[in-house]
Amino acid sequence: MRPKIVLFGDSITEESFGDGGWGASLADLLRRKADVVLRGYSGYNTRWALKVMERVFQAAGDGGAYPSAVTVFFGANDACLPERCSGFQHVPLLEYKQNLRSIVSFLKNRWPRTVIILITPPPIDEEARLRYPYIENTIGLPERTNEAAGTYAKTCVAVASECQIPAIDLWSKMQQIPNWQIECLWDGLHLSRVGNKVVFEEVTNTLKGEGIGAEDLVVDLPLIEDVDPKKPLTAFDEL
Amino acid sequence: MRPKIVLFGDSITEESFGDGGWGASLADLLRRKADVVLRGYSGYNTRWALKVMERVFQAAGDGGAYPSAVTVFFGANDACLPERCSGFQHVPLLEYKQNLRSIVSFLKNRWPRTVIILITPPPIDEEARLRYPYIENTIGLPERTNEAAGTYAKTCVAVASECQIPAIDLWSKMQQIPNWQIECLWDGLHLSRVGNKVVFEEVTNTLKGEGIGAEDLVVDLPLIEDVDPKKPLTAFDEL
Repeated sequence: MRPKIVLFGDSITEESFGDGGWGASLADLLRRKADVVLRGYSGYNTRWALKVMERVFQAAGDGGAYPSAVTVFFGANDACLPERCSGFQHVPLLEYKQNLRSIVSFLKNRWPRTVIILITPPPIDEEARLRYPYIENTIGLPERTNEAAGTYAKTCVAVASECQIPAIDLWSKMQQIPNWQIECLWDGLHLSRVGNKVVFEEVTNTLKGEGIGAEDLVVDLPLIEDVDPKKPLTAFDEL
Repeated sequence: MRPKIVLFGDSITEESFGDGGWGASLADLLRRKADVVLRGYSGYNTRWALKVMERVFQAAGDGGAYPSAVTVFFGANDACLPERCSGFQHVPLLEYKQNLRSIVSFLKNRWPRTVIILITPPPIDEEARLRYPYIENTIGLPERTNEAAGTYAKTCVAVASECQIPAIDLWSKMQQIPNWQIECLWDGLHLSRVGNKVVFEEVTNTLKGEGIGAEDLVVDLPLIEDVDPKKPLTAFDEL
């Protein structure tokens, strides 16, 4: 049975199989070796994630087959400011922290050997957010700020450290890229092609660091390179 | 449990999660609704496919969970000419026909309700094949011809008709596109972005015709549009 890697998160995960998306790139990299299972839920915060986890992971795990890894990528919605137009998605920082801990506990209890990777929210380009509100923005102030996203990102990294699991500090990584607002994001929040590449590379490296990188996984059936043109069927004799 | 759609085929399937690939596009279209499971095996013909089917579908089916649909996309390698540089991949036409029947029978026996879609090989641009041989080509003649691919394509359509299952006649469809050699293929055999779009649209339409299109499938958990901003948690009460 092929290893599974489950991508659990919000819209940045849900959209990850679009053109140039980090999820599709991962599935492409790990073809013949692992299945990448998409469990992204647009708009969800950690509070809603906890409400649905039982169902998400009952199905994704297919009754017993444990995932090799799960990426947990929430916080962009939790970090919406409470008094602004997307305030209904806001989750207070302390609750976000506790919710992340609960998500990690849930997965660790169910599958002790599964690698859990926490990913922080990306940085926010506030100007672009004013041009792309999710719902009508009558206040003229962005519903998310980069500062708030940064606070949630730090908390996410702290939870990972506390739980002794890897974290990808996307908020910090992306801001190292010159002109990250335009380069990495298309609407101040969701990923451009470059932004997707950053997440793909970070996830790939983290999986590698945990011993389940592309080179660590085995192909399930003979590669064409291993088929002897003179006696092709012998490659399949031992199956 | 989410419906599964398994993509079973050769390199044109294996590469389908690359940039602009038809498999990734299908996974993106059906996000929140179905899992697209990649089972592409570069270089394989129907003879080798039959050798590995038991293992492929044991794993892909995850012990009991039947796929809603399986695409069966072989023939490009079977149609290699026997006396040319990729002759070791060649399968005679009558055996190809019988092998396709056996693949369909295998799936029908295991999962009588699963939709099986046969896809013909694409057309071949022979000039480009001379520039992109898989192994050293000392003869100066292409290892595949468009005419041979067409014969295998017709046979594939005939098997689908005989088995009363849908077929996608890619060989014919693609040749309706002006300049298909350059537009649809990048090396005379494998799909360009446009070629991937053709396969994606054909598969999408065929699934729709079988009652498992994007509009027929339901989302597994509340969409953000269905969350009441005034009482967000009520959307999750009934889970």
